[in-house]
Amino acid sequence: MFFNLIPKEFDFFDLFEKQVDYAVKAAVYFKELTLKGSVDEEAIAKIGDIEHQGDEATHDIINQLNKTFITPFDREDIHALAKELDDIIDMINTIVSRLRVYKITRIDKNLIEFASVIEESVRAVACTVKWMHNMKNSKSISESCVEINRLENVGDSMRDKMLAELFENEKDPIAIIKWKEIYQDAETVLDICEDVAHVVSSIMVKQA
Amino acid sequence: MFFNLIPKEFDFFDLFEKQVDYAVKAAVYFKELTLKGSVDEEAIAKIGDIEHQGDEATHDIINQLNKTFITPFDREDIHALAKELDDIIDMINTIVSRLRVYKITRIDKNLIEFASVIEESVRAVACTVKWMHNMKNSKSISESCVEINRLENVGDSMRDKMLAELFENEKDPIAIIKWKEIYQDAETVLDICEDVAHVVSSIMVKQA
Amino acid sequence: MFFNLIPKEFDFFDLFEKQVDYAVKAAVYFKELTLKGSVDEEAIAKIGDIEHQGDEATHDIINQLNKTFITPFDREDIHALAKELDDIIDMINTIVSRLRVYKITRIDKNLIEFASVIEESVRAVACTVKWMHNMKNSKSISESCVEINRLENVGDSMRDKMLAELFENEKDPIAIIKWKEIYQDAETVLDICEDVAHVVSSIMVKQA
Repeated sequence: MFFNLIPKEFDFFDLFEKQVDYAVKAAVYFKELTLKGSVDEEAIAKIGDIEHQGDEATHDIINQLNKTFITPFDREDIHALAKELDDIIDMINTIVSRLRVYKITRIDKNLIEFASVIEESVRAVACTVKWMHNMKNSKSISESCVEINRLENVGDSMRDKMLAELFENEKDPIAIIKWKEIYQDAETVLDICEDVAHVVSSIMVKQA
Repeated sequence: MFFNLIPKEFDFFDLFEKQVDYAVKAAVYFKELTLKGSVDEEAIAKIGDIEHQGDEATHDIINQLNKTFITPFDREDIHALAKELDDIIDMINTIVSRLRVYKITRIDKNLIEFASVIEESVRAVACTVKWMHNMKNSKSISESCVEINRLENVGDSMRDKMLAELFENEKDPIAIIKWKEIYQDAETVLDICEDVAHVVSSIMVKQA
Repeated sequence: MFFNLIPKEFDFFDLFEKQVDYAVKAAVYFKELTLKGSVDEEAIAKIGDIEHQGDEATHDIINQLNKTFITPFDREDIHALAKELDDIIDMINTIVSRLRVYKITRIDKNLIEFASVIEESVRAVACTVKWMHNMKNSKSISESCVEINRLENVGDSMRDKMLAELFENEKDPIAIIKWKEIYQDAETVLDICEDVAHVVSSIMVKQA
């Protein structure tokens, strides 16, 4: 005789809180690294660890989703949210890897500035995700989403200003290749945070 | 006592027409800019305005989608269509921003050529989207999708030819970095138009 | 009097087998090309043919999906699987085109190494897709997915090592621009294979 042990209902909020905490960890550590000014083997190992743990948190959500019949919000929104939060961590990991691969020995003030905005945005993402637990937080959530969108616009202007200066002042094309990619990747983290805000906004409207 | 004022049914076609008109506006203005030969602050402001209005039209569609139970075609197709049309406008805005950030003072004949094909493709996208209002237009729609696919192939060949010439003739690596990205972005607009054609084709087959 | 001739049920496995065979063809031919050391017009035509046939196989799946009510697994998974398999072929085609556009006359040993890993991964993808026909193969499928994930990690390290060497040893910025893009594209093929493994894993869990 067989029993179906697959849970029919699951709230997912704890799993998302765990996942988004790794995103905050990655953003905070990235900020620390930029302030330290360079990336060594230890830093690569540490960000790699965070990324790996984030991966496992993501897989937990997807596996749970595939086994669950009744979800607190639309399946595709759960999937999208898990994927976007995973992408935040991956992108931060990618930037740190590039700093090593490109042998950047002195992180510039621009990247420090970007790392601050990234930390701010990822912290706002974490609040938003945690507040989703309770629909009474809908006002805070929507304010937080507005803030994440604002930070994405800030990032756009920062990247454009930094690229303009880079092409204006840097005469070494190889340095341009490296920093152009790093600034664009940094801005991409903020784009992904904005994508999270869009998913969360959609979920809120559907539940209203 | 409460009444549920959320509309249960909504046709979406008017919203899509509005959104696609902004895409046409962006493509037409981009063509004008390339013919003028350079990008000034006024141009940046104007394309930014169009992008902003396009954004609002996109949000209207997503908000409406989240509030509507009965839709004229699959929810995920409405979502995909709104996103792709928004991406067309964003990508054109990105190209214009790059021209300023990279301080391109003389737009070359290649980009003028690309802007013409982009305008043609976006106009075909607009017709396709507007025709969706009435299933009697299915023949026109499918011819239009074929045309959009054809223009994407034209764009592929154009980009490859332009890049080959750029790497053959341009000796300044910094100029190569700039123009390579601009040509690739221009071709991406045509890729997104083709994605719209794919979504529309899917909708048509499902309704047949 | 009208009869509805649209099939209500369809198994899709034959179509996926056909599509994934084109992916293997593309990967095998790409490997051959790298061993030959250069890309001529004939090679461009041949990879273009494979891409075109792959496109048709993809369209067959999407069209069939849009016409079918009962599918062997979730509609969005069928769509995602078809799209990812198509992306594998497209990306290989893109790399071959770049080799010609950039007038690469001597393919380096790095790309040969990448082509081997790509062939290995695409062959694992093909086995996985073919095994999906029968749920009794679930153990083989999950082992195969683990292998595809492993090869993606191998590819990540290879790309990072190759880029580090390129920036260390190559003094010509234009050569750096070309090879950087080619190595990153090669790694992208392995990313897409991993995406296939994720889709397949999701399907397996849902069916369990």
